[in-house]
Amino acid sequence: MTRDPATAAASRQPPTMRDVAAHAGVSPMTVSRTLRDEPSVDRVLRERVLAAVEELGYRRNDWARGLRGGGATGLLGLVITNLGNPFYSQLATGVEAVAAEAGLQLLVGTSADDVARERGLVAGLVSRRVEGLVVVPAGTDQGHLAGSSLHGVPVVLATSPASGLAADAVVVDDFGGAREASRRLFLEGHRRIAFLGLSHETWTGQERRRGFTAGLAECGLEVDPELVVTTPAGDHDADTTLWRLMSAPRPPTAVFAANHRGTLAACRWVRSTGERLRIIGFDDIATAPLFAMPVSLVGYSPAELGRRAAELLLERVRGDVDDEPRRVVVATQLSHHGHVDVPA
Amino acid sequence: MTRDPATAAASRQPPTMRDVAAHAGVSPMTVSRTLRDEPSVDRVLRERVLAAVEELGYRRNDWARGLRGGGATGLLGLVITNLGNPFYSQLATGVEAVAAEAGLQLLVGTSADDVARERGLVAGLVSRRVEGLVVVPAGTDQGHLAGSSLHGVPVVLATSPASGLAADAVVVDDFGGAREASRRLFLEGHRRIAFLGLSHETWTGQERRRGFTAGLAECGLEVDPELVVTTPAGDHDADTTLWRLMSAPRPPTAVFAANHRGTLAACRWVRSTGERLRIIGFDDIATAPLFAMPVSLVGYSPAELGRRAAELLLERVRGDVDDEPRRVVVATQLSHHGHVDVPA
Repeated sequence: MTRDPATAAASRQPPTMRDVAAHAGVSPMTVSRTLRDEPSVDRVLRERVLAAVEELGYRRNDWARGLRGGGATGLLGLVITNLGNPFYSQLATGVEAVAAEAGLQLLVGTSADDVARERGLVAGLVSRRVEGLVVVPAGTDQGHLAGSSLHGVPVVLATSPASGLAADAVVVDDFGGAREASRRLFLEGHRRIAFLGLSHETWTGQERRRGFTAGLAECGLEVDPELVVTTPAGDHDADTTLWRLMSAPRPPTAVFAANHRGTLAACRWVRSTGERLRIIGFDDIATAPLFAMPVSLVGYSPAELGRRAAELLLERVRGDVDDEPRRVVVATQLSHHGHVDVPA
Repeated sequence: MTRDPATAAASRQPPTMRDVAAHAGVSPMTVSRTLRDEPSVDRVLRERVLAAVEELGYRRNDWARGLRGGGATGLLGLVITNLGNPFYSQLATGVEAVAAEAGLQLLVGTSADDVARERGLVAGLVSRRVEGLVVVPAGTDQGHLAGSSLHGVPVVLATSPASGLAADAVVVDDFGGAREASRRLFLEGHRRIAFLGLSHETWTGQERRRGFTAGLAECGLEVDPELVVTTPAGDHDADTTLWRLMSAPRPPTAVFAANHRGTLAACRWVRSTGERLRIIGFDDIATAPLFAMPVSLVGYSPAELGRRAAELLLERVRGDVDDEPRRVVVATQLSHHGHVDVPA
């Protein structure tokens, strides 16, 4: 909601960027761009903005101050699925770094991949009047995060785009990273390539599977449904899946694992059998250079994911952007550990 | 401070466990033990407690209700040194599990091993009226956590005991785990055994070094000061330390690393040289079974550390214990990965 500038002046509250935008008849984004001296701003709009800034006595520092004043709690909420998973704890580190820089304190809750728990956590954080929320969603639908349930608290999703609501999201290039991996395996000469999927269907899991299939399709190879399996939670169950897959009449010569759980299960199979199996996995593993078997990994920075999400959120909290939901995609890199045959 | 039971009755507040204790002339701990039906309570004291419970109309459920009522914020504060380090994120998971069970929300901040930042975070959390604090201290003195600075907010330290204040603490058996490791290396026949220490002196680092030295002293071996080094942060600098150590005229045949940073540096040295070096390290490494080289690890459960710390804290918040500071020690286990020669 935009306050009337005259009302703002009367109540002696410092004018906000939204007041400037309303006064100049432009979007808050245009005000922001003008104040950052971005060359993309139309000259006429630019002059209208600067005139409004002068008339209202707007000062840029008021943004940050506005965050803390007027009943602001100085709290940001973060809901992740599991703090014990290094990806989410590194993501939390990125969110916390940006929050700390802005003088905000982080309220953290974990949903344990349970949508009902996520709902309860979000409601609890909103009732504590957090100024914004970063959510790593547990399920595939986030309708319960829609504006009305949040009483206007802005939300940014991390790792998965918004489904069932209009919200900013920061995601990994899951499709592109998986596509690169499967193409790579084809180019190395593999034709029996297995896909080790996530045990519960998430947007991330779907994208990685789509990317895997698309990469092979570009090479003219169709995916054999017998080679598509999911890796259950728990080392023992994951190992059983690998043994079953590798004991089939026509076992794969290579696997692409959609997350580190599958990668580690494949590595354990190699370790205990001494057999050859080419492995590429999604997600970095810090100790992979010390592994007894070669492995390639599709990596990205979870901390960057968290930083970007917190940055988008702070822009929302400051009312510094249009309503249009934004999506930021974090790139992946394929790295090789141990001696991997390079395709000719 | 113990409220007078008569005053409590007059003000119509439900009596607390402390009121019962004062009325019966026993410690709150004795009240707690009696209500839990623990057999260790003296029969006479037990009857006095039960009489006081009846006279005051004390009900056990009031504890939990007391947590949420009377201006209680329902917030617990957690200050850790680094959320990106898997040990601290697992510790946080343990704290969060206990907090969530009690209906409390966790406020998390990271000090980046900086005492000044820790001070600021603690002051910020106290000003947000957290009901209690779990702190993984950054430095060796915690005088700034003394009661007066915290306005009575109870604090429990994790990983290191309180120094400069009287507070509960949950620590790992750093001394015992290191002592077991160095004795083991001696019994395997090693006489040139290096110690890879932490780069900054913490209580944990001191205890692990004391345990290492004590274990060897019991075997009649004195530590050669040339074999005692510290492992700097950053893989490159840690690797340089290892190369220097191993290039000495009389290099060690075994190393004990006081944390996973030193363990990984030693493993990288073995990986890149192909030389033999017996390695035992403090701290579990989940992927160690996949390593190309044998390694033994002194492990413990960081999540248990967090759970125990949160449990002690909730007892303090509920006024359910004596003032005497308590210390809980979490045990370690030595595990072996890869083929390690067993001493005869």
